[in-house]
Amino acid sequence: MEDSRETRFAAVEAALGYSFDGDIKIGGNYVSVVQHGDQVYISGQIPRVGNTVVVTGRAGAEVSVSQAQLAAKVCAMRALALLRQTIGNLDRVKRILRMTVYVQSAQDFTQQSEVADAASEVLYAVLGAAGVHTRTSVGVFQLPKNASVELDLIAAVE
Amino acid sequence: MEDSRETRFAAVEAALGYSFDGDIKIGGNYVSVVQHGDQVYISGQIPRVGNTVVVTGRAGAEVSVSQAQLAAKVCAMRALALLRQTIGNLDRVKRILRMTVYVQSAQDFTQQSEVADAASEVLYAVLGAAGVHTRTSVGVFQLPKNASVELDLIAAVE
Amino acid sequence: MEDSRETRFAAVEAALGYSFDGDIKIGGNYVSVVQHGDQVYISGQIPRVGNTVVVTGRAGAEVSVSQAQLAAKVCAMRALALLRQTIGNLDRVKRILRMTVYVQSAQDFTQQSEVADAASEVLYAVLGAAGVHTRTSVGVFQLPKNASVELDLIAAVE
Repeated sequence: MEDSRETRFAAVEAALGYSFDGDIKIGGNYVSVVQHGDQVYISGQIPRVGNTVVVTGRAGAEVSVSQAQLAAKVCAMRALALLRQTIGNLDRVKRILRMTVYVQSAQDFTQQSEVADAASEVLYAVLGAAGVHTRTSVGVFQLPKNASVELDLIAAVE
Repeated sequence: MEDSRETRFAAVEAALGYSFDGDIKIGGNYVSVVQHGDQVYISGQIPRVGNTVVVTGRAGAEVSVSQAQLAAKVCAMRALALLRQTIGNLDRVKRILRMTVYVQSAQDFTQQSEVADAASEVLYAVLGAAGVHTRTSVGVFQLPKNASVELDLIAAVE
Repeated sequence: MEDSRETRFAAVEAALGYSFDGDIKIGGNYVSVVQHGDQVYISGQIPRVGNTVVVTGRAGAEVSVSQAQLAAKVCAMRALALLRQTIGNLDRVKRILRMTVYVQSAQDFTQQSEVADAASEVLYAVLGAAGVHTRTSVGVFQLPKNASVELDLIAAVE
């Protein structure tokens, strides 16, 4: 029990000091999650907690690698929280198939992989082997609401 | 009948004032559409009508939000036109699973979601609930042919 | 035999003058390949050979179109090498479903499609009709390790 995915999710949540319990709302004619067969698509997540984007700005300029890594962790926790709301329990995740990580980057900032590593660590910490995924990380010029990181996922579920 | 997806496609087409009837050609060793089982992948669409890219340049600089939204609508209509050519009729679309929207952005332009909303609206206007999708929108530095917006889709079909 | 996919892979390898035989290692809590049912996801590939990224810098500035095309070819060969390691033989590839190509671009560089064409050519040269795919190509601001190109794939396999 102590080592269940739910417990590990709560442990990462406590370590970050943010709550991912509330409903995650989204405007417009799209949704955060679509399930099709055993695949679940999660919309791009920015490091928003409640109504605040907790890390904004450009990695390699006003945002340090460790701040961008915090952003990546919050995005990953949001994605996991959405998965959990959708399928009821993280134990039903069979595998994270793909994660794409977009890092708002300064012109000469080339550590997008190091930033994405922080999101990968969250997936692995919570899901174990099922959280080991394929990944693409790139440096973009801007992101919605000046977020430092955005990521999306495709998961396979029971 | 009046409220069929085909009628709504024609209505959006008329409102935009462009035709999406012609063959959409593409060069090189790739194609606009690949179907695999019940999933259809659509290649990245820029706002091209005939041989003209109708909205070019950088959102937040020489391109306004509403011009970028027009670009997003044209891209979405092209994607729907390709889906329709492939499966014969838009009524066979079960769900749009994922849309990724790339907006050519100025350095401080952070309204990529607002631009992408225009594409989401087209999908919903034409397909109804089947058009409600997951979405990722990011701000990129450049796009092919200086297009202001590019988007791609994955759809589930009957 | 002479025209098998394995032979054509070797021919492109020889033409490029690089070996794609070695294990392709990757750090962190993610992997290069995940197979789910008949779909194989390949992580974002940069033009790394051994420990060297063979083409770095910004297309349209210090990197020419033909250098960026070389980068795209190396990325595509890496992706094929990973597919081959995973499923044992390239003859088991049924179709490349999607390729996304990220080009590190100068502000006014708009030939991302021409760069991506080089990767598409590799897929077609090696896999024939099974290598004809959907594609999205965009211009990003930076990439990991200052790579000029990064690409990822989804393939359907037997």
